[in-house]
Amino acid sequence: MPASLPSSLPRLQPDAPSNNLPRLLLSPPMEDKCPKPIRCKAAVCRAAGEPLAVEEVVVDPPKAHELRIKIVCTSLCHSDVTFWRMKDFPGVFPRIFGHEAFGVVESIGEQVEGFAAGDAVVPTFLAQCSECADCRSSRSNVCSKYRFAVRPGMPRDGTTRFRDGDGNPIHHLFGVSSFSEYTVVDVTQVVKVDPAVPPATACLLSCGATTGVGAAWKLAKVEPGSSVAIFGLGAVGLAVAEGARICGASKIIGVDLNPDKEELGKKFGVTHFINPKELGEKTVSQVIIEMTDGGADYCFECIGLAALMNDAFQSSRAGWGKTIILGVEMHGAPLTISSLEILHGKCVMGSLFGGVKPKQDIPILADKYLNKELELDKFITHEVGLKDINTAFDLLLQGKSLRCTIWMDK
Amino acid sequence: MPASLPSSLPRLQPDAPSNNLPRLLLSPPMEDKCPKPIRCKAAVCRAAGEPLAVEEVVVDPPKAHELRIKIVCTSLCHSDVTFWRMKDFPGVFPRIFGHEAFGVVESIGEQVEGFAAGDAVVPTFLAQCSECADCRSSRSNVCSKYRFAVRPGMPRDGTTRFRDGDGNPIHHLFGVSSFSEYTVVDVTQVVKVDPAVPPATACLLSCGATTGVGAAWKLAKVEPGSSVAIFGLGAVGLAVAEGARICGASKIIGVDLNPDKEELGKKFGVTHFINPKELGEKTVSQVIIEMTDGGADYCFECIGLAALMNDAFQSSRAGWGKTIILGVEMHGAPLTISSLEILHGKCVMGSLFGGVKPKQDIPILADKYLNKELELDKFITHEVGLKDINTAFDLLLQGKSLRCTIWMDK
Repeated sequence: MPASLPSSLPRLQPDAPSNNLPRLLLSPPMEDKCPKPIRCKAAVCRAAGEPLAVEEVVVDPPKAHELRIKIVCTSLCHSDVTFWRMKDFPGVFPRIFGHEAFGVVESIGEQVEGFAAGDAVVPTFLAQCSECADCRSSRSNVCSKYRFAVRPGMPRDGTTRFRDGDGNPIHHLFGVSSFSEYTVVDVTQVVKVDPAVPPATACLLSCGATTGVGAAWKLAKVEPGSSVAIFGLGAVGLAVAEGARICGASKIIGVDLNPDKEELGKKFGVTHFINPKELGEKTVSQVIIEMTDGGADYCFECIGLAALMNDAFQSSRAGWGKTIILGVEMHGAPLTISSLEILHGKCVMGSLFGGVKPKQDIPILADKYLNKELELDKFITHEVGLKDINTAFDLLLQGKSLRCTIWMDK
Repeated sequence: MPASLPSSLPRLQPDAPSNNLPRLLLSPPMEDKCPKPIRCKAAVCRAAGEPLAVEEVVVDPPKAHELRIKIVCTSLCHSDVTFWRMKDFPGVFPRIFGHEAFGVVESIGEQVEGFAAGDAVVPTFLAQCSECADCRSSRSNVCSKYRFAVRPGMPRDGTTRFRDGDGNPIHHLFGVSSFSEYTVVDVTQVVKVDPAVPPATACLLSCGATTGVGAAWKLAKVEPGSSVAIFGLGAVGLAVAEGARICGASKIIGVDLNPDKEELGKKFGVTHFINPKELGEKTVSQVIIEMTDGGADYCFECIGLAALMNDAFQSSRAGWGKTIILGVEMHGAPLTISSLEILHGKCVMGSLFGGVKPKQDIPILADKYLNKELELDKFITHEVGLKDINTAFDLLLQGKSLRCTIWMDK
């Protein structure tokens, strides 16, 4: 054991009954006023595109405005994969990935209000300071005090709370880094959730499901009886379908190259399926315009391809069609659309996190889930333990999973 | 006189007291159930970019769903110039230009309801059938039954109502062609206006002023206290400023290469002026972001240049910034913006006619004018008679006029 890791550090025993969720939820431990570093397991990635290795790491105590969270479960999102593959800045290594998770507050730093050890929480990649002009406005969900940026460290001081066995720093992702038994997150990026929501379900609200459902519900404000086209039926696209379904859309068209998505889509409210490879000489937008008698009221791009963004725009209805960009363009290409067509009353909008204000809207979505209005469990297709986290990568990369729950205690 | 022009046609006598406006307004002539062709003067353009020639033309009676209007005054808009210069289809010649006008209904065709001879009206390039899904929806101003298109003829049957002295057809522009003492317009493109509005002012409501004011009021829905940036301070841009002013915007930034627009802009509510040539190494968007502490809430592109559309987008505030495209891109270039930046809550929208539903909203704007809420007269910088219509072209092309009223009876 290196000198930098004092053997007196508390060692997490994930299999011991004293660490399981019910105890923490029902009987939170006494809040430790001077939290100490914790030694625990984390899945560390040491180079772009390489498999993650479960290592012992040290997680520093939370500084002021920070919470240390015991992660109960986490899952893999395409954004993790994007930065996992990234060889150049902001792709930095070693790094602990993961930003969709559910956990329990283990300890809080100074000046943290409204949270206590034992609270059931989800971290979010987007901050909400609740004080800036954006947080105070109903029109924005992009905190302007703590702007979203892909930093290697924590949002306030840029430093890291992770060290490896040799005492070397490990970088954060989005200030969340949930592929670790414990992580430290800024208070602006932590949302309390009703503990009645099962952990694996609450985890979905941390990123993917909220992004898609929010895009339909909060950003596009899908109206009852309307038509919706969704380009890309991954987890976010299917969450858009779920959001459109609960908003009362009458026609939900899914577009995907994977024919398996036709059956899958039905579970999420997709009423019509288009495989662009099977259209002959027609374009996707021609088919959607025919199916909707003029174009879909709302077109969502959920992949991150400029060509698809233009397809979505062309498929949207003149007069009031909204094109909603959710995907991060994977080659950095610009959005290019007809400057003439937009004059016919079309609109293009985009958002991070589906226009959702984390601290305000995630609890609303949790309520919708508990009221059985919003269906979330169907997003969970697989589960593994932390030691098998690379299987979660394989499943996502092969298009086999929507969400694979990664349990920390399995 | 050619054989095709029977000498028995009524000859308009524009200078005779019996044809002036007050008589028509106060004592409309008996409606002629079988209107006949009228011989009158019109400014005809016979080839792209050539001066207009005031000629004697024959204006056929209105067919079903059409009205024949005695034009009282008209004005020149940049869109006229665009099609006047256009050598290839839809640039067709000979053509009678003009689509911003005020007039009085002279006669009505069959199946025209709600209009009678003597009604004070403005024609509009945009139709409103009041029956289609778009006309019935508050979200759209683009009639989907009679879509806007640059046709050479009338919207329903594609034929023309104009013939020249040799009996050859003359093409219409936008179904309006107001550079003629009489013209025929489809009932969907005619709006009654309160005769208390002076003719030259009502004329402005027919196109330019309504487009700009509407873009701020109806399309962008500018909120009190907000910041607005306007790219291009022509008549439409200044009308956006006027619209933003009556909506209560607190900061109205005008951007124009013409330094004379700084003083002019002040009359229309422009509070800050930027001449892009005088910024040194800074870009327009950098300056606007500094002036507005993060970007303008609303950015209007009123020129029709793709590069400026991108400048407007970059100048708009993350979180809720709206970029509103009003200009028709003059080289047909696409709108190209950052696909990443739009994810930060930005939105791009466009419209024809500023999102205004002609028959519903022009009367509202007329009321706002009569209530002295909306100031319109300041748009009128010059006036000429029909015989001097080419002077109106010169003034607009030289950037000397905002609106030059072209009086038919002068």
